[in-house]
Amino acid sequence: MQTSFLQHPNIQYTKQKLKLTAARLVNNHVNLAVTGLSGSGKTAFITSLVNQLIEANEAAHLPFFSVVRESRLIGVKRDVQPNLTFSRFAYEDAMVKLTQTSPEWPSSTKGISQVRLKIKYKKSRGLSQYLTEDATLTLDITDYPGEWLLDLPLLDMDYAQWSRHCQEELNDPLRHDIAGPFFTAVNRLDLNAEGDELALQKIAELYSQYLIDCQTRGYQLLQPGRFILPGELSGAPVLHFFPLTDVQLQQQRGDLNKPVKGSNVELLSQRFEHYKTKVVQPFYKDHFKGFDRQVVLVDCLSALNRGFHSYQDLQKALDWLMGSFQYGSSNILNRLFQPKIDKLVFAASKADHITPEQQTNLVKLLESMLHSARKQIQFDGVSTESTAISAIRASKSGLSQLNGESIPVLQGRNEQGASITLFPGEVPQSCPSPDFWKQQKFEFPKLSPPLMNTQYVLPHIRMDQVLDFLLADKLI
Amino acid sequence: MQTSFLQHPNIQYTKQKLKLTAARLVNNHVNLAVTGLSGSGKTAFITSLVNQLIEANEAAHLPFFSVVRESRLIGVKRDVQPNLTFSRFAYEDAMVKLTQTSPEWPSSTKGISQVRLKIKYKKSRGLSQYLTEDATLTLDITDYPGEWLLDLPLLDMDYAQWSRHCQEELNDPLRHDIAGPFFTAVNRLDLNAEGDELALQKIAELYSQYLIDCQTRGYQLLQPGRFILPGELSGAPVLHFFPLTDVQLQQQRGDLNKPVKGSNVELLSQRFEHYKTKVVQPFYKDHFKGFDRQVVLVDCLSALNRGFHSYQDLQKALDWLMGSFQYGSSNILNRLFQPKIDKLVFAASKADHITPEQQTNLVKLLESMLHSARKQIQFDGVSTESTAISAIRASKSGLSQLNGESIPVLQGRNEQGASITLFPGEVPQSCPSPDFWKQQKFEFPKLSPPLMNTQYVLPHIRMDQVLDFLLADKLI
Repeated sequence: MQTSFLQHPNIQYTKQKLKLTAARLVNNHVNLAVTGLSGSGKTAFITSLVNQLIEANEAAHLPFFSVVRESRLIGVKRDVQPNLTFSRFAYEDAMVKLTQTSPEWPSSTKGISQVRLKIKYKKSRGLSQYLTEDATLTLDITDYPGEWLLDLPLLDMDYAQWSRHCQEELNDPLRHDIAGPFFTAVNRLDLNAEGDELALQKIAELYSQYLIDCQTRGYQLLQPGRFILPGELSGAPVLHFFPLTDVQLQQQRGDLNKPVKGSNVELLSQRFEHYKTKVVQPFYKDHFKGFDRQVVLVDCLSALNRGFHSYQDLQKALDWLMGSFQYGSSNILNRLFQPKIDKLVFAASKADHITPEQQTNLVKLLESMLHSARKQIQFDGVSTESTAISAIRASKSGLSQLNGESIPVLQGRNEQGASITLFPGEVPQSCPSPDFWKQQKFEFPKLSPPLMNTQYVLPHIRMDQVLDFLLADKLI
Repeated sequence: MQTSFLQHPNIQYTKQKLKLTAARLVNNHVNLAVTGLSGSGKTAFITSLVNQLIEANEAAHLPFFSVVRESRLIGVKRDVQPNLTFSRFAYEDAMVKLTQTSPEWPSSTKGISQVRLKIKYKKSRGLSQYLTEDATLTLDITDYPGEWLLDLPLLDMDYAQWSRHCQEELNDPLRHDIAGPFFTAVNRLDLNAEGDELALQKIAELYSQYLIDCQTRGYQLLQPGRFILPGELSGAPVLHFFPLTDVQLQQQRGDLNKPVKGSNVELLSQRFEHYKTKVVQPFYKDHFKGFDRQVVLVDCLSALNRGFHSYQDLQKALDWLMGSFQYGSSNILNRLFQPKIDKLVFAASKADHITPEQQTNLVKLLESMLHSARKQIQFDGVSTESTAISAIRASKSGLSQLNGESIPVLQGRNEQGASITLFPGEVPQSCPSPDFWKQQKFEFPKLSPPLMNTQYVLPHIRMDQVLDFLLADKLI
């Protein structure tokens, strides 16, 4: 080939140019899925990601983002989003809240919103020695409620299977207690009697209340997601169903395939199916089909704070989530939506709530949670990375003297806005035993956002590394 | 044929039976559109219609509804609605509000909701002398915000035409005043500059505020309807557009077909088109395509109360509405959605707010408003009827002595719930001149709902006649 190049440099040049142009046409677009359970920090993450890119003008702020370090980033602008019928991601509102005299965290996600960025950059010299022009990468980010994310596995279940799954969850004594009013009502229902829509609606409301109460107490694995955040489906009969109890499942055995026509149990089963085909399936089809890359945010620290039940539930929710995101295998997401994700970051969020030397432990803890799922994903040829980040860093780290010893501390502002200095404690490298929580509690703090004064670039931890992992190969 | 019948009675019998069965299969479903501008009483109408049918058990209450008068109505039950992703029409909630100790009017329509009724009846002897079985008619009713109803004509306009239409509306001095902040902002916008989404959003919010303020002052012809009641589109860029001013339209002449790429004016035009294809068209396609029969509710009295500007605007809104509902002609609704409506009732609502002898005038006033549109509809072979109704009657009529003379009066409860006796005045037979309002005002009262005590059947005026017109031929 080298010979050929020497013989016909112009022809070879044209070929190479064509090849590069084609590559650029294919690669000039990244569709990023920012996934995470409710409260994991998706909105803060997207706000920070947009902020880092739009405001990027010095390498000091994003040292590990190669296109910035190499001074090749020309500029980033927000552009018209691909789907105009979704909300515009409220970046500007979030920045107003974060930069006001008493900064506030951005509001959490209540529906779907989008943001598109146009990233203009100089091509790296290595590849484009024959080309000098600038290039543009389009980055689309979609934000959506974490509550809706865990509904995917429902697509592989029928009503009886889903009921059994819910009953397993309800074996947890705390959950069982919370579900008291639901159990009282559902046990009174005659499944084979003529369908009573109002009765079903009332029991569904009790089930919905149970899920909301569970969320308040730190549970995450809560289906159906629209029961917690119905969006435009508020009041629609497609949400008026609930799982059968173990006793009812035994009584109905077999009959569930051929329920009495027009009976309560037929309505319930029909609505469950309707929820799958008219709510869950379109959501994944509209959003997950087109994603190229994915961030999975996990808030391990809040789960540790809340205790064993919450931590265990987070672990379950992640298993459940990763089970449905096993790219490359013949799993449900692939069969139905054929996504083409090739890079995946697992990020433990809120890493600014612990002292720096604990961050390695936080990543180890995250990896212990993802162990089995991650192995599967790597096997399937998706490039993955685990890290601990802070999208909007609310603390500074330092050293303090205690009994003559230097100990690492955090300085930040508590929820009331008062300055505090604290040592939040050690992060375990794997899940502590249930007994551990009986003896002591984790108390990672809740912090107010940083005071920005006149600054407009959000402080962060490792957002540059995440950006580099996600985008660097598309910015060459 | 008579000979043939005598020769082969059994064959003829079978033929007739088959014919009747086929007719019943075709006719066993009515899809009723209850249309009306915002505040015209759609929710009260549907609540009453459902109530009259479900509670119907004595002819005294529905004397003009033939199936009841002939004691052929067996029973009516609410059934599972056709589309489970829309809200369930809140009939039960409305009845709770209406039957409580201090009754309240049902909440107004904020989104789409549905109700399905199964009407079981005995077939009339005339036609079914060879058949004895009962029959069932399914009645589907969809409730939706009146604000969305006037968007249909937008489908036949481009962005420039729509802008011109809006500017004509804005020539009204009162509207022009209300639109002050919008004009200030829109005049500052450089249409050919690079698109500034945030600037467009802010001006669109001012335009939206102008529409909301107009509605408060009694205007009805307010587009785009989703700007007033966005539903799930709240915050979506598809709502971030507004009409150009006359000056801008002149400056842009011609350029509107080929706007500068990426400019503000291109974004505006694209969003207007997006609104048409992604919002208006699906709404009509999903709902209006399948309707068989239609009720158009018109609140003439409130418009008279509010003065000439409001009355004139109602007239315009009805022209605009009826223009788009000219069934049978080659109008836009037909071209796009091919509805098959064959019966149409125009009903002046709130007829309980005037004394009985004024109700003829109210119907005449309504007919004067609909004059031109109605002629067109009759020509197209749709059977129409005008009437004055009260879905939920909030007054009783009586006579009172004034200066030795008997005058007709109403007895009801004012908005604070106190009993009042009043003569609301005369209803004009056609639109009074603008000067009339300068000399005197109309003051038709606002009334609280009737005290139901232990009763559960809503009192009404002429709901039986409306039911008979809409359903009698399907209940034979």
